[in-house]
Amino acid sequence: MKILIINGPNLNLLGKREPGIYGKESFEAYLKKLRKYFPAITLEYFQSNVEGEIINALHNAGFLYDGIILNAGGYTHTSVAIGDAVKAIKTPVVEVHISNLHSREAYRQVNLIGAGVKGSITGFGLDSYRLAILSLLPPV
Amino acid sequence: MKILIINGPNLNLLGKREPGIYGKESFEAYLKKLRKYFPAITLEYFQSNVEGEIINALHNAGFLYDGIILNAGGYTHTSVAIGDAVKAIKTPVVEVHISNLHSREAYRQVNLIGAGVKGSITGFGLDSYRLAILSLLPPV
Amino acid sequence: MKILIINGPNLNLLGKREPGIYGKESFEAYLKKLRKYFPAITLEYFQSNVEGEIINALHNAGFLYDGIILNAGGYTHTSVAIGDAVKAIKTPVVEVHISNLHSREAYRQVNLIGAGVKGSITGFGLDSYRLAILSLLPPV
Amino acid sequence: MKILIINGPNLNLLGKREPGIYGKESFEAYLKKLRKYFPAITLEYFQSNVEGEIINALHNAGFLYDGIILNAGGYTHTSVAIGDAVKAIKTPVVEVHISNLHSREAYRQVNLIGAGVKGSITGFGLDSYRLAILSLLPPV
Amino acid sequence: MKILIINGPNLNLLGKREPGIYGKESFEAYLKKLRKYFPAITLEYFQSNVEGEIINALHNAGFLYDGIILNAGGYTHTSVAIGDAVKAIKTPVVEVHISNLHSREAYRQVNLIGAGVKGSITGFGLDSYRLAILSLLPPV
Amino acid sequence: MKILIINGPNLNLLGKREPGIYGKESFEAYLKKLRKYFPAITLEYFQSNVEGEIINALHNAGFLYDGIILNAGGYTHTSVAIGDAVKAIKTPVVEVHISNLHSREAYRQVNLIGAGVKGSITGFGLDSYRLAILSLLPPV
Amino acid sequence: MKILIINGPNLNLLGKREPGIYGKESFEAYLKKLRKYFPAITLEYFQSNVEGEIINALHNAGFLYDGIILNAGGYTHTSVAIGDAVKAIKTPVVEVHISNLHSREAYRQVNLIGAGVKGSITGFGLDSYRLAILSLLPPV
Amino acid sequence: MKILIINGPNLNLLGKREPGIYGKESFEAYLKKLRKYFPAITLEYFQSNVEGEIINALHNAGFLYDGIILNAGGYTHTSVAIGDAVKAIKTPVVEVHISNLHSREAYRQVNLIGAGVKGSITGFGLDSYRLAILSLLPPV
Amino acid sequence: MKILIINGPNLNLLGKREPGIYGKESFEAYLKKLRKYFPAITLEYFQSNVEGEIINALHNAGFLYDGIILNAGGYTHTSVAIGDAVKAIKTPVVEVHISNLHSREAYRQVNLIGAGVKGSITGFGLDSYRLAILSLLPPV
Amino acid sequence: MKILIINGPNLNLLGKREPGIYGKESFEAYLKKLRKYFPAITLEYFQSNVEGEIINALHNAGFLYDGIILNAGGYTHTSVAIGDAVKAIKTPVVEVHISNLHSREAYRQVNLIGAGVKGSITGFGLDSYRLAILSLLPPV
Amino acid sequence: MKILIINGPNLNLLGKREPGIYGKESFEAYLKKLRKYFPAITLEYFQSNVEGEIINALHNAGFLYDGIILNAGGYTHTSVAIGDAVKAIKTPVVEVHISNLHSREAYRQVNLIGAGVKGSITGFGLDSYRLAILSLLPPV
Amino acid sequence: MKILIINGPNLNLLGKREPGIYGKESFEAYLKKLRKYFPAITLEYFQSNVEGEIINALHNAGFLYDGIILNAGGYTHTSVAIGDAVKAIKTPVVEVHISNLHSREAYRQVNLIGAGVKGSITGFGLDSYRLAILSLLPPV
Repeated sequence: MKILIINGPNLNLLGKREPGIYGKESFEAYLKKLRKYFPAITLEYFQSNVEGEIINALHNAGFLYDGIILNAGGYTHTSVAIGDAVKAIKTPVVEVHISNLHSREAYRQVNLIGAGVKGSITGFGLDSYRLAILSLLPPV
Repeated sequence: MKILIINGPNLNLLGKREPGIYGKESFEAYLKKLRKYFPAITLEYFQSNVEGEIINALHNAGFLYDGIILNAGGYTHTSVAIGDAVKAIKTPVVEVHISNLHSREAYRQVNLIGAGVKGSITGFGLDSYRLAILSLLPPV
Repeated sequence: MKILIINGPNLNLLGKREPGIYGKESFEAYLKKLRKYFPAITLEYFQSNVEGEIINALHNAGFLYDGIILNAGGYTHTSVAIGDAVKAIKTPVVEVHISNLHSREAYRQVNLIGAGVKGSITGFGLDSYRLAILSLLPPV
Repeated sequence: MKILIINGPNLNLLGKREPGIYGKESFEAYLKKLRKYFPAITLEYFQSNVEGEIINALHNAGFLYDGIILNAGGYTHTSVAIGDAVKAIKTPVVEVHISNLHSREAYRQVNLIGAGVKGSITGFGLDSYRLAILSLLPPV
Repeated sequence: MKILIINGPNLNLLGKREPGIYGKESFEAYLKKLRKYFPAITLEYFQSNVEGEIINALHNAGFLYDGIILNAGGYTHTSVAIGDAVKAIKTPVVEVHISNLHSREAYRQVNLIGAGVKGSITGFGLDSYRLAILSLLPPV
Repeated sequence: MKILIINGPNLNLLGKREPGIYGKESFEAYLKKLRKYFPAITLEYFQSNVEGEIINALHNAGFLYDGIILNAGGYTHTSVAIGDAVKAIKTPVVEVHISNLHSREAYRQVNLIGAGVKGSITGFGLDSYRLAILSLLPPV
Repeated sequence: MKILIINGPNLNLLGKREPGIYGKESFEAYLKKLRKYFPAITLEYFQSNVEGEIINALHNAGFLYDGIILNAGGYTHTSVAIGDAVKAIKTPVVEVHISNLHSREAYRQVNLIGAGVKGSITGFGLDSYRLAILSLLPPV
Repeated sequence: MKILIINGPNLNLLGKREPGIYGKESFEAYLKKLRKYFPAITLEYFQSNVEGEIINALHNAGFLYDGIILNAGGYTHTSVAIGDAVKAIKTPVVEVHISNLHSREAYRQVNLIGAGVKGSITGFGLDSYRLAILSLLPPV
Repeated sequence: MKILIINGPNLNLLGKREPGIYGKESFEAYLKKLRKYFPAITLEYFQSNVEGEIINALHNAGFLYDGIILNAGGYTHTSVAIGDAVKAIKTPVVEVHISNLHSREAYRQVNLIGAGVKGSITGFGLDSYRLAILSLLPPV
Repeated sequence: MKILIINGPNLNLLGKREPGIYGKESFEAYLKKLRKYFPAITLEYFQSNVEGEIINALHNAGFLYDGIILNAGGYTHTSVAIGDAVKAIKTPVVEVHISNLHSREAYRQVNLIGAGVKGSITGFGLDSYRLAILSLLPPV
Repeated sequence: MKILIINGPNLNLLGKREPGIYGKESFEAYLKKLRKYFPAITLEYFQSNVEGEIINALHNAGFLYDGIILNAGGYTHTSVAIGDAVKAIKTPVVEVHISNLHSREAYRQVNLIGAGVKGSITGFGLDSYRLAILSLLPPV
Repeated sequence: MKILIINGPNLNLLGKREPGIYGKESFEAYLKKLRKYFPAITLEYFQSNVEGEIINALHNAGFLYDGIILNAGGYTHTSVAIGDAVKAIKTPVVEVHISNLHSREAYRQVNLIGAGVKGSITGFGLDSYRLAILSLLPPV
């Protein structure tokens, strides 16, 4: 099974950025643990701060991978184009967020990406990624 | 480990009600499978169509259980009182939804409960409940 | 033919409550006249001030009766959950209101229940119920 | 007893126009059945696509007839002037709609005419007209 | 003189729930003090988390008591039905709130109950109840 | 000097319609007095309930008369097209209203016509028309 | 006959301030002409940039004068307190504006004062004041 | 091939009306050139300022012509009824506008007609009509 | 104990102004009774129609008195500056209103002052002031 | 004549992406046909999913080409920056859309780019591009 | 060079009021330093809590000084009249704020004064005043 | 001292683009003058039209430089992601704008970046950059 994790803007700063909200661990460190936890899964990783490169990544993986895990960061609330890309591809996309968006700023209550995803997992810190992978495995 | 699943209004009709949106399996049938899947966890279940009884259930479990999984159904969008109850208790609450709320009616985009939960899992059909239990287990 | 009339909150006070808006006759007195007027129809009656009990009543009758006449009172404007119940059942539901909602407060212009009903009859005083029964009989 | 039915814009296309929403029967055919059903009532009929002619018809009938049944079609949502005319006349006006407006577009949730009518009957297909006539007859 | 205090959802948790906002004293303990402070007044108490039971309590007391003190908690912001009940009864209702709603979340700025009350007392902690009783005694 | 008074929808009912708001005098009777009061002015009069005929009248008079007095009635709040016509012609248009729109319904606070007029005179009863004529005479 | 003209903020700059909108004549110069034009009327004048002093002036004149002409300037759009003062006094108040508010900024479309006035005269330049005086004289 | 051009309110003034926005040429003069440019097409023309007559014209042509080109003018922003008519007929309708609506007033950003048309061509001056005809011819 | 009562705009007209809403007693007469009722308290009184003078009064008393009772009248709904002053001082401020704001105009539902006060007492007529003083005395 | 076609996000998937909305033909295939259809025109093509690269392309072509045809895809609704670029350059820009935006989601009714273009062509499928080229050729 | 600094409501409390937001230094102390820092500039200072006195100060200085530095405090968000005064005068006005308004309450996002100023300097604490003076000196 | 100036979309066109709003000087020419004016400061410069590259630049400089001056151009109003980046870094960011945003389009009143900056300087033309540098130097 081949899964691509796509992280959007500012997520490269994880561990450095507002640790009260986003935690102290870098994503690379976490990714190592995740790969150990799911040895049977090929977990690839892509990060970009550029909206269009996230769209490119969705297009490239969207007809080849078994699943995409997307944390679109701030673009979640402003990008019709990423939302269109999610709908345009075949691979199921699972949306994740580290923080609980419902307890944050009003402009983070708007979600322009969620309508096309398979499901959303929000607020569990980095554990949201583990749950997203589990959601791509067979159900009960 | 002791977890309470609380289902809100109309979820007693699962399997009968709009199967195009909510699927064809009853929750009781699914619960059996779930208990088999997590043999080490005590999974209790409560359903009510009455807003105040859901609040009562949150109060009762909220200082005793290890986790609560709450699908507040239609009350998700209208109940300040359940949202207050979630904030008032000690036990972590994980919010689940069967359908993808982001692709449905405008009034389902309002969430008055999510601000106080540990995290939200939305749109994976009944599998949302399995993921919610997994979210209460230790992370990677 | 078997029809259930469900009256929501405060309609038990009919005849006592703001008679300028709702009239002076109690619903029980009116129901007697109605049964005499439609001798061939089994008219049952349920009233509750509790949102969830109205949902329960819709569930119970919703797969057995030939028609349901629902005056959800104040819940008309606030209950996503009753609106969901109306959509979830098989029996056709006819919505009635005693007063003309369009000439009242702004918050009574929102209707969260009407989208799933067979039709709505509003503003004819208690006569709205007679018209609702007639609407469940064969058309011209 | 003398009743005028006023149909607004596009209702002359009934039977031809979007039959999924409005049905396949022309209004003239239906009117014949209606007259047979209510032999004791003089049922007159007026249709216009012109907002001002509907106002003229309300003025002309509004001091002479026993009742007016008004389906203002698309003008329901945009015409302050028809709403003013309804309030300006003596004859009671009953508002009808063929389709259930609550399950349609957002701009059809605005009603600028309903505040002045005796009552509204919405969503029963052409049967809404029969119910409107019945609403002008003596109650129980 | 006979006064009923009605407390709405989550107020049974007083003393346990978010003490930074609501204080550390349970309502039962406070009620004792209050009865001592007003020895000449019969002070009865009812709490429920169920919206409809609050309406029932208003109906039952609303034609017999000299005053009702209502803290509708979260239902203050969402219940048209409780607001209707307050208007439907004879006994004057005084609205109280423990915390200052004006300094809290945006959705707590909406008040669907206040239009029908005799007056509102907000933000004085539990002392709001004492002031409410004083407001039912003769003025200067 | 040649002035055209254009009255819009329902103003033909003046004297009959809601006299509490619009007064008891018919416009024809008032017009006679007005002509006597301004003997040196040719006062012509046009009334229509049809939005498009009001536009036609504006076009016809709008390059020939010295002034137009327009009471667009309910179209004031809904007609972009009449507002466009007012801007499209050469003759100055003075807007009048009989009642004080600021103390009426919310939808009467919207004015789609006023931006192109010379000035507006509102709320003086029929006397608004006299003042409008005076506004077309030379200033101090 | 005794009339008070009250001018609000910035109207002391008339003639200096944005002459494209407000004209080149000072109010004092205009007032002289106005007094000559209406020799039988005692025309008094008060200007203040202070909201509360305008309220004071309304209170002082509001039980003694035959009419008040009020140009509240920018306070028209923001002052609930002046609107309350207009309603609180006995003398009829006529609202005037020099420029056509409907063709200006969105925030000038809000009017918090107009609901209590006898009538409004807007957009005729300084001639609005002459018309306002005429509106206080007997009608046709 | 038979095409009907329908022009709505104020377009009869083309060439006279606000030439800065709409140009200096009358539509009749332009129509001549257009007919010469498309000699193989029968181009008919209808203009009305009356909303209902535009609906009538759509009904009449809507089952007979090969294409309709509609410039609904100001009714574009206010007419649910014309929008309904466009949806109710068989002939494809192409919407045109002379000016670029996106650079004009806020109320011109609302379009109640566009949802049912084949396509829209906006902002090219009178050349919008030529492009509309070309859009009814076979594509590349 | 030293308490300052600050009354805002139009409250000097109490007894004269709209007695249906505000009652027939002048504030001075009421103040006398109040001083008799609370002989142990030094009750000072300040009234101004000027927003800035109310701010000055808050500043002056705000570091010296034991309590301030503020009825900001119409400024309650429009004054960010008074709201800032209330937050800037040390003395607790209790907000009072004579009428029930929740049953009045929409613009009176906005409160820009309440967020910084100790508590609010609304709707009890002049008795609101007595209750406000009581709220500054020790609780049960 | 030299024209640049700029396609925005997801338009590289044309033919693969939601063919029910966007059709089955790839843009490259269509472009070939288009070049054959307009042999005298140099048609260049640029596609990018990156908002800033579209701005770069507009800058580069915007002082050299005779026309630009821009389908900004999802950025149409969210990009102030592309809208600014369109206004900043000399070459006329024609906006095209494949689907009829007026019949799609609410967030596609916002257009941040249209105010600066020469004109817009919307809803004709790929034929919108042909019409856009025609709009850059001389009019009738 | 002669510059007037105008400080609005509550800024007289600087140093005492909410020091977490506004700092601990009084404005008078700061002003001394500022005068030392700019020995060549005549720096005058005016503070008032009264909206209209700020307007008076703008009028008085607005045709005589070389620059005005205005911190309108809470009136920034509510005063159309001060905004009008800024536009009405000749002297350039530079707007300053001590705190970063963008990170504060929603009602502080509205700015009714900024449209007429030369420029705005916001969020630098008291240093905003130094920068404002520098902005009135010649640029690079 | 090391400062990075980051210019966003379209600012590379400075001097060419809408000179009425943005002036005639190119940024490069201005930068030379600025470096001469501040000889002791290392002034680096980065411009990009790509949202994500601006985020990258903020990340790169955000832990190394003494100050960042950011003119995010059109992204100011649409980019949650740049706003997040500003909050995520250590170096203080000063926001600048050349034109006065308060006097421009409604969509330029939204600012998604300002909440995290040290301060904002708006409307002084290119001089805004000089003032921004001065704001990073020690205060009075």
